[in-house]
Amino acid sequence: MFEGPDGSGKSTQLRRLVELVTASGVGVCEVREPGGTKIGEAIRQVLLQRDHDCMTLRCEMLLYMASRAQLVEQKIRPALARGELVVADRFVTSTVAYQGAAQGLPYDEITAAARIAVGVNTPDLVLVFDVDEETAAQRAGIVAPKGKGKRGDGGTSSLFADRMEDRTREFRRRVRQSYLDQAQGEPERFRVIDAAKGPDEVWRALVETMEKWAGGDAGAGGPAAR
Amino acid sequence: MFEGPDGSGKSTQLRRLVELVTASGVGVCEVREPGGTKIGEAIRQVLLQRDHDCMTLRCEMLLYMASRAQLVEQKIRPALARGELVVADRFVTSTVAYQGAAQGLPYDEITAAARIAVGVNTPDLVLVFDVDEETAAQRAGIVAPKGKGKRGDGGTSSLFADRMEDRTREFRRRVRQSYLDQAQGEPERFRVIDAAKGPDEVWRALVETMEKWAGGDAGAGGPAAR
Repeated sequence: MFEGPDGSGKSTQLRRLVELVTASGVGVCEVREPGGTKIGEAIRQVLLQRDHDCMTLRCEMLLYMASRAQLVEQKIRPALARGELVVADRFVTSTVAYQGAAQGLPYDEITAAARIAVGVNTPDLVLVFDVDEETAAQRAGIVAPKGKGKRGDGGTSSLFADRMEDRTREFRRRVRQSYLDQAQGEPERFRVIDAAKGPDEVWRALVETMEKWAGGDAGAGGPAAR
Repeated sequence: MFEGPDGSGKSTQLRRLVELVTASGVGVCEVREPGGTKIGEAIRQVLLQRDHDCMTLRCEMLLYMASRAQLVEQKIRPALARGELVVADRFVTSTVAYQGAAQGLPYDEITAAARIAVGVNTPDLVLVFDVDEETAAQRAGIVAPKGKGKRGDGGTSSLFADRMEDRTREFRRRVRQSYLDQAQGEPERFRVIDAAKGPDEVWRALVETMEKWAGGDAGAGGPAAR
């Protein structure tokens, strides 16, 4: 599973891994959240309404889990049964980071819902693409690089913008910290990759991490156990 | 909460109760599932796709719970805070009956999801409108009354229709039994009303049940504790 904030480069790296593995003749099933199935896409459309309709945090989390339950039973489980490698762009780890750590939904509620949605199909390996929140936000186009913002118009609107930016910076900081905390809590399943570097360096780190993991570093939860 | 199969007459009785309570000057908040909020209605639209897209049972159950979580936080909790009586057409009891008992989703998964969606806002009183499955289905227009069906065309299509009808009869039988089992398991919160009789007789039984409950039969979980 590829986890990390928008702008961590995880989707680019995932694409590259899928191409490499496919070229080597191994079947790959690539999934993306939320969505990934026709029903998941319909749920995604509901999630897109969340801002203008005051969706509650619990409703949002349960919608992510409903989409995930559909994805697991319709796509992931059959792919595993066919012996394919399943790679996912975001999974439970992201729900813990975004709805849990960043917005305050209790961890126990998220893990209880995840147990229902995912069952025994927890990922063998979770790759966290770690990058400081400013770099990630700049890459994702969420904030302008330092000194390049449209600031200096003075007055209350600037103050408001500053306050909003402080809030979103704090949000991104909590998301990052949650990814790192989760990785520290389950070192056997998680690997952290320094994603602040350029794409080629990150790719080399990814390949090295995967090779080490597949070579026995994985332990009982490794690919052989699948 | 008003619970029971389609054709049990619960919605008619609920309407009548709301009118009576409103006329007596008490504030009433009436909710209906799935839906009841703008987001709940959007989720309802996704649920309507379940048949032609092979929605998994877990996805379906989590969607009901997502809609319920929104309903609880957006409507039910504020209404309780205003001191209103909340009456709901279906709630958790129906999920246990339809997705659990009738279709096989484990009871533990449903109650774990319900704990997230509903929290402490469990109903003080659950009214089960009990009616044998044949009568309910005939009232709801699901099957034709005995001797009035379009049968007798012989051959495989009739055999297939028979088999389908056996399946749906078994489904309805399980739903009914689940309502009765849940009522037996929690006698302090549940009351069973014989809904096989005519609407006026059922109404008298409902009023009597509510009066008894409000008059102290309710115990610690009664309206005074709200």
